[in-house]
Amino acid sequence: MQLDASGLQVLTREECLDLLSSTPIGRIVFTDRALPAVQPVNFYLDGQSIVIRTSIGSKLAAATRRAVVAFEADEFDPELRTGWSVTAVGQAREVTDPDEIAWLAALPLTTWAPGSRDHYIVIEAEHISGRRITTHSTGATTPQRAQG
Amino acid sequence: MQLDASGLQVLTREECLDLLSSTPIGRIVFTDRALPAVQPVNFYLDGQSIVIRTSIGSKLAAATRRAVVAFEADEFDPELRTGWSVTAVGQAREVTDPDEIAWLAALPLTTWAPGSRDHYIVIEAEHISGRRITTHSTGATTPQRAQG
Repeated sequence: MQLDASGLQVLTREECLDLLSSTPIGRIVFTDRALPAVQPVNFYLDGQSIVIRTSIGSKLAAATRRAVVAFEADEFDPELRTGWSVTAVGQAREVTDPDEIAWLAALPLTTWAPGSRDHYIVIEAEHISGRRITTHSTGATTPQRAQG
Repeated sequence: MQLDASGLQVLTREECLDLLSSTPIGRIVFTDRALPAVQPVNFYLDGQSIVIRTSIGSKLAAATRRAVVAFEADEFDPELRTGWSVTAVGQAREVTDPDEIAWLAALPLTTWAPGSRDHYIVIEAEHISGRRITTHSTGATTPQRAQG
């Protein structure tokens, strides 16, 4: 188990992708009028691509057009004080090809927010990294996940 | 109930601060070597100040020094497809005044990650905004929070 400078467990790329597939909500991090911005979104991981639906006139669509963005998902347990976090960084692109739109429209990607969302943004996860806090992140080796 | 262009309920500043007080984890959004970056952190809301502990040599400490950052917290229920999100934007500052450090050290701010974290970063929430997705965010008016 590899630990980083803060004593957190470093996740492999494969673990990161598995965890990203396990959750329906992530946060897209971008720049909006020169200020840092962040917005929770429903997403679907299609291979190594993060797929997001929005409306074409949205702030998100405008701000992410041809931009490098970060995308983060996590899950924490306040009682156990454990959890994981995965961050992907990559180029966001709007999807305009009709064949690709048809492909994306068939994915099991549902959005919880109301309104029409027929505009797709895809983030290619070029860099991906993740960390896990276990109750023994300081280095003790008692297995934590064998009790469920 | 005010709705935004996406049909989400717009939260008041007071509601945003109440929700921020209710959760121990948020995400700090900053720029790291010209790229968007995001990191989950434990925090404590002291009035309108978001207080974070880190180590002085951390990437977070270096990247947020005198920077404008965003800070986001949220909570979602995947079964009900409801939830809220609050984002604050403001200047981050490292705390160097010994009296202020003593004040902050007495706050009930615990960090889950291991390691020494005796360096404080404070973000003054200059702009704060929040949204809520209810099961009736499209505009129906059945109260959703009166059943608990």
